[in-house]
Amino acid sequence: MKLAILGGGGVRIPLFVRGVLSRPGISFREICLFEPDQARRETIGRLAMEVAAALGHRGVVTLTPDVEEAFTGADFVFSAIRVGGDRGRLIDEEVALRRGLVGQETTGPGGCAMALRTIPVVLSYCEALARYAPGAVLINFTNPAGLITQAISLHSAVRAVGVCDTPSGALDRLATFLDAHRDEVGFSYGGLNHLGWISSFRVAGRERIGTLLDRYEELQRFDHRFAAFDPDFVRRLGAVPTEYDYYYYEPQRYVQAVAKAGASRGADVLRLNSGLLGDIAKAFEAGDVHDAWQAYFTQMHIRRASYMRTDMAGEAMPLAAAAGGQDQAAGHDATGHDAGDLGPAGGGADRPGGYEGVALAVIAALTGRRPASVIVNTRNGASLPFLDPDDVVEVPAHIDGGGVAPLAGGSLPRSARGLVTQVKEYEREVVSAAVTGDAERAAFALALHPLVPGVTVAREMMSEYRERHGPDLAYLR
Amino acid sequence: MKLAILGGGGVRIPLFVRGVLSRPGISFREICLFEPDQARRETIGRLAMEVAAALGHRGVVTLTPDVEEAFTGADFVFSAIRVGGDRGRLIDEEVALRRGLVGQETTGPGGCAMALRTIPVVLSYCEALARYAPGAVLINFTNPAGLITQAISLHSAVRAVGVCDTPSGALDRLATFLDAHRDEVGFSYGGLNHLGWISSFRVAGRERIGTLLDRYEELQRFDHRFAAFDPDFVRRLGAVPTEYDYYYYEPQRYVQAVAKAGASRGADVLRLNSGLLGDIAKAFEAGDVHDAWQAYFTQMHIRRASYMRTDMAGEAMPLAAAAGGQDQAAGHDATGHDAGDLGPAGGGADRPGGYEGVALAVIAALTGRRPASVIVNTRNGASLPFLDPDDVVEVPAHIDGGGVAPLAGGSLPRSARGLVTQVKEYEREVVSAAVTGDAERAAFALALHPLVPGVTVAREMMSEYRERHGPDLAYLR
Amino acid sequence: MKLAILGGGGVRIPLFVRGVLSRPGISFREICLFEPDQARRETIGRLAMEVAAALGHRGVVTLTPDVEEAFTGADFVFSAIRVGGDRGRLIDEEVALRRGLVGQETTGPGGCAMALRTIPVVLSYCEALARYAPGAVLINFTNPAGLITQAISLHSAVRAVGVCDTPSGALDRLATFLDAHRDEVGFSYGGLNHLGWISSFRVAGRERIGTLLDRYEELQRFDHRFAAFDPDFVRRLGAVPTEYDYYYYEPQRYVQAVAKAGASRGADVLRLNSGLLGDIAKAFEAGDVHDAWQAYFTQMHIRRASYMRTDMAGEAMPLAAAAGGQDQAAGHDATGHDAGDLGPAGGGADRPGGYEGVALAVIAALTGRRPASVIVNTRNGASLPFLDPDDVVEVPAHIDGGGVAPLAGGSLPRSARGLVTQVKEYEREVVSAAVTGDAERAAFALALHPLVPGVTVAREMMSEYRERHGPDLAYLR
Amino acid sequence: MKLAILGGGGVRIPLFVRGVLSRPGISFREICLFEPDQARRETIGRLAMEVAAALGHRGVVTLTPDVEEAFTGADFVFSAIRVGGDRGRLIDEEVALRRGLVGQETTGPGGCAMALRTIPVVLSYCEALARYAPGAVLINFTNPAGLITQAISLHSAVRAVGVCDTPSGALDRLATFLDAHRDEVGFSYGGLNHLGWISSFRVAGRERIGTLLDRYEELQRFDHRFAAFDPDFVRRLGAVPTEYDYYYYEPQRYVQAVAKAGASRGADVLRLNSGLLGDIAKAFEAGDVHDAWQAYFTQMHIRRASYMRTDMAGEAMPLAAAAGGQDQAAGHDATGHDAGDLGPAGGGADRPGGYEGVALAVIAALTGRRPASVIVNTRNGASLPFLDPDDVVEVPAHIDGGGVAPLAGGSLPRSARGLVTQVKEYEREVVSAAVTGDAERAAFALALHPLVPGVTVAREMMSEYRERHGPDLAYLR
Repeated sequence: MKLAILGGGGVRIPLFVRGVLSRPGISFREICLFEPDQARRETIGRLAMEVAAALGHRGVVTLTPDVEEAFTGADFVFSAIRVGGDRGRLIDEEVALRRGLVGQETTGPGGCAMALRTIPVVLSYCEALARYAPGAVLINFTNPAGLITQAISLHSAVRAVGVCDTPSGALDRLATFLDAHRDEVGFSYGGLNHLGWISSFRVAGRERIGTLLDRYEELQRFDHRFAAFDPDFVRRLGAVPTEYDYYYYEPQRYVQAVAKAGASRGADVLRLNSGLLGDIAKAFEAGDVHDAWQAYFTQMHIRRASYMRTDMAGEAMPLAAAAGGQDQAAGHDATGHDAGDLGPAGGGADRPGGYEGVALAVIAALTGRRPASVIVNTRNGASLPFLDPDDVVEVPAHIDGGGVAPLAGGSLPRSARGLVTQVKEYEREVVSAAVTGDAERAAFALALHPLVPGVTVAREMMSEYRERHGPDLAYLR
Repeated sequence: MKLAILGGGGVRIPLFVRGVLSRPGISFREICLFEPDQARRETIGRLAMEVAAALGHRGVVTLTPDVEEAFTGADFVFSAIRVGGDRGRLIDEEVALRRGLVGQETTGPGGCAMALRTIPVVLSYCEALARYAPGAVLINFTNPAGLITQAISLHSAVRAVGVCDTPSGALDRLATFLDAHRDEVGFSYGGLNHLGWISSFRVAGRERIGTLLDRYEELQRFDHRFAAFDPDFVRRLGAVPTEYDYYYYEPQRYVQAVAKAGASRGADVLRLNSGLLGDIAKAFEAGDVHDAWQAYFTQMHIRRASYMRTDMAGEAMPLAAAAGGQDQAAGHDATGHDAGDLGPAGGGADRPGGYEGVALAVIAALTGRRPASVIVNTRNGASLPFLDPDDVVEVPAHIDGGGVAPLAGGSLPRSARGLVTQVKEYEREVVSAAVTGDAERAAFALALHPLVPGVTVAREMMSEYRERHGPDLAYLR
Repeated sequence: MKLAILGGGGVRIPLFVRGVLSRPGISFREICLFEPDQARRETIGRLAMEVAAALGHRGVVTLTPDVEEAFTGADFVFSAIRVGGDRGRLIDEEVALRRGLVGQETTGPGGCAMALRTIPVVLSYCEALARYAPGAVLINFTNPAGLITQAISLHSAVRAVGVCDTPSGALDRLATFLDAHRDEVGFSYGGLNHLGWISSFRVAGRERIGTLLDRYEELQRFDHRFAAFDPDFVRRLGAVPTEYDYYYYEPQRYVQAVAKAGASRGADVLRLNSGLLGDIAKAFEAGDVHDAWQAYFTQMHIRRASYMRTDMAGEAMPLAAAAGGQDQAAGHDATGHDAGDLGPAGGGADRPGGYEGVALAVIAALTGRRPASVIVNTRNGASLPFLDPDDVVEVPAHIDGGGVAPLAGGSLPRSARGLVTQVKEYEREVVSAAVTGDAERAAFALALHPLVPGVTVAREMMSEYRERHGPDLAYLR
Repeated sequence: MKLAILGGGGVRIPLFVRGVLSRPGISFREICLFEPDQARRETIGRLAMEVAAALGHRGVVTLTPDVEEAFTGADFVFSAIRVGGDRGRLIDEEVALRRGLVGQETTGPGGCAMALRTIPVVLSYCEALARYAPGAVLINFTNPAGLITQAISLHSAVRAVGVCDTPSGALDRLATFLDAHRDEVGFSYGGLNHLGWISSFRVAGRERIGTLLDRYEELQRFDHRFAAFDPDFVRRLGAVPTEYDYYYYEPQRYVQAVAKAGASRGADVLRLNSGLLGDIAKAFEAGDVHDAWQAYFTQMHIRRASYMRTDMAGEAMPLAAAAGGQDQAAGHDATGHDAGDLGPAGGGADRPGGYEGVALAVIAALTGRRPASVIVNTRNGASLPFLDPDDVVEVPAHIDGGGVAPLAGGSLPRSARGLVTQVKEYEREVVSAAVTGDAERAAFALALHPLVPGVTVAREMMSEYRERHGPDLAYLR
């Protein structure tokens, strides 16, 4: 099988490749990294090749700046691109934050601007994919993942599945918390990407959601991703919200937390990444692969360890990994990226974890190797009956050689239906604005977002986004 | 027929009585004003009696501080009370406004606090009504009208209809704008009280909504209640929003407008009303009924003429009526309160207008005198299929001697469904909090309101409301 | 106002005209009977003119064989035609009956054949109407009324309302049974034409459906239209079925009843009508208007008095009216046709009764004279949520100058939903077969009818209908 | 794992045991046959033990007349009982057939009588199961499988899955017909047990339902289970009906076919089975295990080869297997029962086939060994949105260690919704009648069945069933 990766020079790719190649079961004859930027190919790309070699798969990872070469012969394509880069993200955040609004990269104004930059680019890749590998399946990580998958689903001929590890990560943590084996867990999950709830959690047929709610304070100490929610509010919801729901349930606290931290996540990541390519290049020039990996891995660790701590707790991102703290923090990390060298990803768990775990679960299921229920972003059909059949939703789906079939009735907490309906309406309008290139429609789409206080401010922000993002949004008129 | 009025000493009552007694068709043998406050009975109440006398109905208006006396023998009861008075309203607004949030009295945090003060009081009146006049129909004006009607519908045995003149007023104005006779107008309207849209407007069977949208700027000049909406946004909606939708579509502009005006509506009304009772009392002491009426009418006129101008345009309420401006302003007023003396309300239009017009239309229909379709707040049934059958919604209903039956499919603009779903969920939770007396539930209800940025701030505000409203909210624990 | 009548030479027309002209309130300057058949114009048509004259409206009734003349200037058009005549009806029945299947003219195979003959004719009249009187409203009585209205609604530009007096007649009888004034009755009714149920019956706000079910045996003695249903079954339904539901609840009993009676309703009516035109013509030749009326009225009385007695009780239609029995029978008749001369229709009831009563109620409401809730066949919208918005259903609708708006949620008994869904699917397919002229589709439509035992027998019957109906069905290929 | 079998002495059990023990993957330490009838234990039961021994699993099959012994320690329970035996089935058929109505054992009147006999017995076993093995999962084959599973689901604490091999068998045959590998097939299926349709059939992501419909005549020659449907009608449906839909689409042809054959299926099976136990006993007495197997296998083969031929084609069941015809016939049989000795069931296909195949697929999925999408009878949830969440429906469900989750939107052909709604309503009422023991409710339930022409005939049939079934229906009052 050949796997092509759009955004092959992204910083997460070496870890992704290590994860993919460390797992038993699926073997790829080629993992082709598509990356137009030469500096990224020569640093991140090369690092990914070294990882493959260290794992005994020398030659499996290839690099190309040519999309035809990348797609031809591909069975699966991963898409994980960031149009506008880290600087674009910073603009997304700033325009919202300086108005006292949520500036997170995937939700609210920031997510809207990101989607508007990204949709035309992704759709043009999809056109190429339909030409060079019409049978391939696109596995979309590109954020905002639900919105982008909706655009692909409605406006392209490509078969696409949107994936995010947030809900499966939450389920894994809940299982661990209850000392349950993940395979005996049944659950209900539903919503949109980055706006989902776990409303039932059964272990060996017994409903345990009540236990989880009763012990929610304990769960918050167990993992900080549950920590930002008011426990009594969660109990009233009757469901466990996933971490991104925070931006909807506590927008004002988020704004205050970022102010306290002194810098937004985007600013931190930009700062963190800025020296990374240079450091890796320097290490490679010095011929030291291990140093290159260390420079890389340290920064990825800082990033992971500080995930959501700015937004939820107002903690500034540390400039360097605390000595010794690394392993401990990693111990809480369900993604399995717990080893500091190029060797196999730790644990050897055959349970999918992290981005690559979910992606591999989808691939294993679609090839018929291991049919499974995976939470994905896919065409709704009748799964959430208050949305349209054509909407893309985030729900568990049965996946096997026959395709992707969403399960019925991902029951949401009652109070979430209105919120989800509203966000989906916003998403539909963003997609329409992007494919028609209509700037006013984009502003009105943004005005429909529940985190945006009105039409006037939405118009102002859209104006500012268009001005500051320059060519990336120049198609909007 | 006997009509009892809860809140019979409210400032609007003399005008209401004048309106009721000026219209042909329905005659009441008694209009009994229930008012526990002696000062109000002796000023406002007496003024209402004088109005009746001036219209040739001496003795029809009666006053009582006793609820049994008021209800016994009543066929219909109007409820228009304000628990906590004008000072309560000011608190409602201030707690929200100083956090930069919408502080309007019927929507958002202010509406929530008002509802929580009011529900227990209204339900206890309903209990009395069920005892003293079990067959009577309650016509509820008490704000927030939809929410209060929902509380009555779910938690009382009384037959109740919630009424507001906002949607019918908007329809009247649209008909006038198009030079159409109101009787040949067919329309679609749907939503909740103070959150509704006109999505179809047919004249003699021909759809004219497109014309209204095309000429929306002209419509804005025609009546200022349409002026605060972005015309292009309205065209994208595909429906004419009614005036209170402003608080949802432009919360930030509202906050800025109030800041610009220098005082909120509630502060203005408090100031305006503060001397009113004294002025009336003085005039009565001096034996000058006409002076009492003038003092009253002038202030009512200022109030009406400045309606929504603070919130939408940032204009401060004038301290006194501009000379000569009175009639002109009244000319824009569809309510028909256009005469400065105690005589019959102007126009003689048999078309219901204003509060009393809608109330009389409901009474005329329920008594079988003139079956009609009236926009009311009533049990949803299957009218808005995305809400629960038990929810109270604001839709056109066929009313005749057989009762109130909502029309099917008050089609909302697509983007409004999520908003309405969310606000209704908030309303359900407010009612539940009020009937259980659960303060935390009240805070979480508020957190669900789309104009409230999160659980933490909702908790803070609810705390402050409880502290500042003292005994009115002391039942919440 | 001008009223045009399609099928102006139909046997019911003189009574219809008498009913229309006897009622206060609506006055027509012209009632134009369109009738291509000269013999019918000279007998039935002339009788209608004499009735008008006797009521003091000489000259109001006009006759024409020309459709342009009939439609030009019309405000309303009644359609009550029978393509294929009484002989066609007989064929409809026979083809079904000789297979042991329900052969009633409006349901099952008979109704299907009737609809297929009628739809093309009605649609061509609609085309003419759209040309000659584009603003006119068509009030459709032509049977099967729901199916024909569905065809018009989907395939013509004409505004149409389908009307049948079955449900309103049933409501009137229930009110009489309970000694209630019809104006204080509230009710729930829903379904399709000739397939409807009354599931709530409130008097002055109090639910009385339980009483009606408890006393159902008594109700059966009160009026024979309730007599054919199993009382215990009706109680289990929890709703009062209207009389045509009999064909669905007792198809086998119907077949046995017809066998017992020795002749179907269609055969009886054919026999009864066969001499009628001759008798009337003879009386007119003899110059005796009163004799003409007597001949006519006697036969109409026999017809009315024997309504449904063959199908439900296996009683053969009497050949002549029993002496003296006439008035008594008429006394049970809510239609008000109780007088044997040309003078005003009896009772003077201002409550609409019978065909013309419902039609006049619709006209009075549409002209804005008396807005009302009337049970009509109209576009579903969201009234019955399990059917399509475009389906025509039989539900109460609010009618006023603004148009026809179905009420929400005509709640059916739970067990009826499947039946109604199935019959509506059959209706959709019949309409599609008629407009495409597809004989096979017609057969398959028939196969979907719940009273037809399979595809094979449906094909056989459709074949036989096409053969026996000759030119009327020759368009099916 | 321990598997208990209710109805362990049923004639299909030896083949079932052979199938279970021939498949790789799942191994049972005990298969316990519960059978109260001694003669059956000593013939059928012993034969099952011999089969196990011949397959190298001596001692795995155990026999018991004691339900506590059977259930204790069981992980799974299969239920395949026939209350009233073959004679009961004959009565079920006769009462309907002599009225010209469908008398099939699982649909229509016959299925109703069978369900009424069976529900109380099954529910009492469920009570025992909840006591002796509360964690066990019941896999219900007992017919009518959907209706019985509905009774269990609503009225017992046992976790149950209803299984039938009709839909999976049809899918297998369609895959074979198109030369597709079953693992690359995606499909849509939905309905109720014995009333289902395949509305989408995708091979490697490409929709092929159009091809199947275009080539339907060829498909009919390929397998006789598709042969009884009118190909043009099927094309109009737009979906492939499964074989039992025949009774709904061609009830009259069924009645004619049985008349032509001279005996119903039930009569044939009764005749066929009547000597079977004696023959097996004789062979065992003579010590000849192989002879016992031959006697058994020959009769099972006749039965299988003649499946549906009486009902669909009017062919009488042959009295003995045609020489040599056996293998050929078996070649058409997807169930894999193709060998005439006690050795392993043929083919070695790891694809589940036949009853035991579906059962084993469910077990493999529930134990987490191989998650899969299996068509089962399970609680609807939101799968078929026009039915109730609590209804049991037949749809594909994702099954894994977490439980059974129906897929969303098993889209039915449009015309099937009404039929399915009606049959489900009938099923609900049958279950209610059984648990309340209400004979009249049972009759009315039957009257709701689309194959029953009315309330009167339903009452008559229910009366006759109660009389003829004696003690089995004596609980109905």
